[in-house]
Amino acid sequence: MPGVPPTRFVFLGPEGTFAEQALRTIPAAEHGSRTPARSVPEALDAVRAGDADAALVPLENSIGGSVGVTLDELADGEPLVITREVVIPVQFVLGARTGTPLAGIRSVAAHPQASAQCRRWLRENVPGAAVIDVLSNGAAAQAAAAGEHDAAICAPIGAERTRLTVLAKDIADHADAVTRFALVSRPGPPLAPTGDDLTTLAVYIAHDRVGALLAVLTELAVRGVNLTRIESRPTGERLGRYVFFLDCSGHVAEARMGEALQGLRRVCADVRFLGSYPRAGADRPTPAPTGTADADFADAASWLARIRAGEGL
Amino acid sequence: MPGVPPTRFVFLGPEGTFAEQALRTIPAAEHGSRTPARSVPEALDAVRAGDADAALVPLENSIGGSVGVTLDELADGEPLVITREVVIPVQFVLGARTGTPLAGIRSVAAHPQASAQCRRWLRENVPGAAVIDVLSNGAAAQAAAAGEHDAAICAPIGAERTRLTVLAKDIADHADAVTRFALVSRPGPPLAPTGDDLTTLAVYIAHDRVGALLAVLTELAVRGVNLTRIESRPTGERLGRYVFFLDCSGHVAEARMGEALQGLRRVCADVRFLGSYPRAGADRPTPAPTGTADADFADAASWLARIRAGEGL
Amino acid sequence: MPGVPPTRFVFLGPEGTFAEQALRTIPAAEHGSRTPARSVPEALDAVRAGDADAALVPLENSIGGSVGVTLDELADGEPLVITREVVIPVQFVLGARTGTPLAGIRSVAAHPQASAQCRRWLRENVPGAAVIDVLSNGAAAQAAAAGEHDAAICAPIGAERTRLTVLAKDIADHADAVTRFALVSRPGPPLAPTGDDLTTLAVYIAHDRVGALLAVLTELAVRGVNLTRIESRPTGERLGRYVFFLDCSGHVAEARMGEALQGLRRVCADVRFLGSYPRAGADRPTPAPTGTADADFADAASWLARIRAGEGL
Amino acid sequence: MPGVPPTRFVFLGPEGTFAEQALRTIPAAEHGSRTPARSVPEALDAVRAGDADAALVPLENSIGGSVGVTLDELADGEPLVITREVVIPVQFVLGARTGTPLAGIRSVAAHPQASAQCRRWLRENVPGAAVIDVLSNGAAAQAAAAGEHDAAICAPIGAERTRLTVLAKDIADHADAVTRFALVSRPGPPLAPTGDDLTTLAVYIAHDRVGALLAVLTELAVRGVNLTRIESRPTGERLGRYVFFLDCSGHVAEARMGEALQGLRRVCADVRFLGSYPRAGADRPTPAPTGTADADFADAASWLARIRAGEGL
Repeated sequence: MPGVPPTRFVFLGPEGTFAEQALRTIPAAEHGSRTPARSVPEALDAVRAGDADAALVPLENSIGGSVGVTLDELADGEPLVITREVVIPVQFVLGARTGTPLAGIRSVAAHPQASAQCRRWLRENVPGAAVIDVLSNGAAAQAAAAGEHDAAICAPIGAERTRLTVLAKDIADHADAVTRFALVSRPGPPLAPTGDDLTTLAVYIAHDRVGALLAVLTELAVRGVNLTRIESRPTGERLGRYVFFLDCSGHVAEARMGEALQGLRRVCADVRFLGSYPRAGADRPTPAPTGTADADFADAASWLARIRAGEGL
Repeated sequence: MPGVPPTRFVFLGPEGTFAEQALRTIPAAEHGSRTPARSVPEALDAVRAGDADAALVPLENSIGGSVGVTLDELADGEPLVITREVVIPVQFVLGARTGTPLAGIRSVAAHPQASAQCRRWLRENVPGAAVIDVLSNGAAAQAAAAGEHDAAICAPIGAERTRLTVLAKDIADHADAVTRFALVSRPGPPLAPTGDDLTTLAVYIAHDRVGALLAVLTELAVRGVNLTRIESRPTGERLGRYVFFLDCSGHVAEARMGEALQGLRRVCADVRFLGSYPRAGADRPTPAPTGTADADFADAASWLARIRAGEGL
Repeated sequence: MPGVPPTRFVFLGPEGTFAEQALRTIPAAEHGSRTPARSVPEALDAVRAGDADAALVPLENSIGGSVGVTLDELADGEPLVITREVVIPVQFVLGARTGTPLAGIRSVAAHPQASAQCRRWLRENVPGAAVIDVLSNGAAAQAAAAGEHDAAICAPIGAERTRLTVLAKDIADHADAVTRFALVSRPGPPLAPTGDDLTTLAVYIAHDRVGALLAVLTELAVRGVNLTRIESRPTGERLGRYVFFLDCSGHVAEARMGEALQGLRRVCADVRFLGSYPRAGADRPTPAPTGTADADFADAASWLARIRAGEGL
Repeated sequence: MPGVPPTRFVFLGPEGTFAEQALRTIPAAEHGSRTPARSVPEALDAVRAGDADAALVPLENSIGGSVGVTLDELADGEPLVITREVVIPVQFVLGARTGTPLAGIRSVAAHPQASAQCRRWLRENVPGAAVIDVLSNGAAAQAAAAGEHDAAICAPIGAERTRLTVLAKDIADHADAVTRFALVSRPGPPLAPTGDDLTTLAVYIAHDRVGALLAVLTELAVRGVNLTRIESRPTGERLGRYVFFLDCSGHVAEARMGEALQGLRRVCADVRFLGSYPRAGADRPTPAPTGTADADFADAASWLARIRAGEGL
């Protein structure tokens, strides 16, 4: 639960992938247990069942293709909340056993999406090598370490774990790609606001109603709540309903976010609160827009109370 | 004050005009004192000074041209609130002393705006008559009664008061014109909501800011508050500020209106509450839109409280 | 018609009021005929009938109470368009026959709304004088000149015309009040845009439809058209319809205004174009917001044409 | 190109997956060549290079995790357009070599996301079986056919292709899940509107600008363009820019869509048109909202032309 430091961590495995690398950036995880899960649902179910205190799963990335699964799993079943986000750069390396020269590489093990992201580099540097699809970045490193293939595209932690030599680093075609992970726990009182927080929501609206999404965004905008991410997904269960995953600037304990949430609750088919947590990378704090700070709400509330009491106005 | 039945009434005079006719529709005014005032400011100042309990003044009409004055006076100076609206049809009559035939009428006394509204009728029925401008509908009736002119365009109550014979009634070119009056008192606790109330506001915004008015209306719309009237007026005091007079569906004691008012308070340069009162003509009640009833706000508030407490969601 | 310089002018009379003062600021009017009309409808009908080329009538003020009449007359009947606005300061003076000392004034003739605007000054400077209501500012000056009353509250031009001595000037309680007049003609090609123009519209919407006005304003806002004035008026003819008078920044010949007008035409019950004309007081030009200049529209149109043709994108 | 029937098709391989199954629903593909690609980028590059006429790739699903890749590839590089969408139900089957009883299954080959979607069925029906991760649904079928594992979770076409016996069908936990594929070609004149079309766009906006997305949606809403899908993605290239992928109701050849596109072009950092194509499943046509049909736009355009010409209004 938020508030109680978790000690038993689960993460999307296998070992040696970006998820483990992300988990290692959390101090508490260094002192706790870290168990890999075979899938996002398995990781989240471990938390739901009480077998783990927190799960680290990918939330938004261009790597593992698990984002949709994560969102769907958070929106369904027993409620869970995000208590922390971890954003790490996607720094692919080419790893090989010691002594292997770049020129001698004939086969490269890689997750299909990893090799897709390094296509330009591969074409220019190892044009003759065959790319062998494997199931994960971690599996790629292990395959190279085991001598099954000459080299692997993997995360730095994967190369380190399997004692591969890094022949080249930062080989992704887009140098500044990042992956965003969420640390997920069972519901509890949210952490105190830091002044630069995000709140994640799953909002359900009726399908094909013109302006429904516009109405949702307007509920946020009039309270000065900005949107940093939005994703619509069809709900499998029932045709004619859509769910939107929103990342909003602000914290549920703030007045502006509280009023916005109540507005969504009133106008949407359903709303699921998925956590308020500090924004990763505190270098760009976003203050509440003019008129939407807690003090502004408090002033407006006392003004209204005076009017309702028929006092001096 | 609202809550305490007023006994001393003032109205925009002179006697025999639509304002007096409107005042006579209020039961309490039948038992209290009814004093004419020379102007809207004089009527309102009598209430501010405590010399009267309530003033009946025109709020919206096409007759007396006093609307702007009423709004400006409500927006400036010591606060006052509207506690009741009275809407009466504008039924102009042509009155003349007994025995005067229509064909013999050579002069018609009329307020310029009254004669303007009866132009077609005058042209078709007394084409040869001269129209003599006078200062009010009441003065027109008195002039005809005194024999200064052959006939008068006046309110039914004016003809009755001066014992004129009604030669023709409903002579206005637009048959269904109405005038809307406001009963104004010193601030006090608003009357209880009736389920079909209006709330009047004066809202100040910065001039020339693109979208400023849109922002005001959005604050209302997201809480399901409809607008039944809007009028912008330049503020004499300071260039670069505009004031909007809004009539909104709903009552300040309702949750949706309360939240909308707080929103305006937060985003506008200034807001003045000018009263919540029953809508005249209860035949077209307007229920709160879906999701904006008090029960919806209460449900949303307890839902938010559960989230903030970290309870089961 | 716009484009053809008018030579026969009519204005809201009588002579010696602010309307005549405003008309005299128009160069062409100095060389043409200037005929007072008894009412706004009479002035506009003279133009409709071809008896005058242009009429100068009050559009927005706190003086004559004729604004509503002007708007209603523009919205009804044969179409007319505004070709020019004239904004003049409301500078009331106290005029008296030569030799009358301020201390000796026992009666002051004034239009009721003029005396209402000078109440503070009257109270402080001629506390013992009786205020006599008359029908216009011009009539007040004439009454003082004729010796019927000791003094008059009137426009500077009224004092000059009747050879009154100005005992005090700028006596209005609000020093910077202005009156806005419109020069109205029969429809014709609008004047060329100046870069700082206004467009006036009468927009009809269905009553009580939540968000109808919001929809109107959104049509303007998305094209970068700002609103400088708005006034709602009930339509006499039919219950359940409302008309809004809008003054918008921009000219009908501009792309952004053209698209906004078409949008209103599509979504509103009715729209009447009431003219595009230079904004009075060129000291505060308002450039089209980013992305809404004619060049931006032209760029977007050619981009769309390429897409529809299946060209390179 | 749109307009010219494609004959050389490429699809996201390997053979025996849902992508091939989707491609087979297109009549032209039955008569043309059908080549599997190793990845979405490879498939799209084949079209860009002219080696194929059209590529069938997943656009929106909960299966392959390739959606993000597809979107990113469409937004970058040489322009491509969607000419057709194919929506097929996700009907997972459990396939095994002939003679294998359900009770005897000890290992099940499956793509990780396929097994994730069938977790409940696996737990209830083959609780003792180990789930073996493989790289695709097609690879799972091949592994079972080759005897490497006892059974496979695969698409019906995969079981048929590898001559597996279907032990159970419709084993996904959510019975009505669907996958949506796009047929992608080089730019060309769009197909004629059918009255029920979708248009896909990539819209770039400045990051963290409050209300930026609201502005985008408003551009659509005021022209009656509905949104059926939205997804935000960070742009790898440059921090501080966001791209939104939008599926909108309507066709680029329609007036409402044309004006909406021009509006986006004017207010957004960038817009890429990704095709107009018939909506799959013609059972729920969505007519243009009131006032947004082509005839409404034509009427408004001729009305504006009359105003600009100064004609009768």
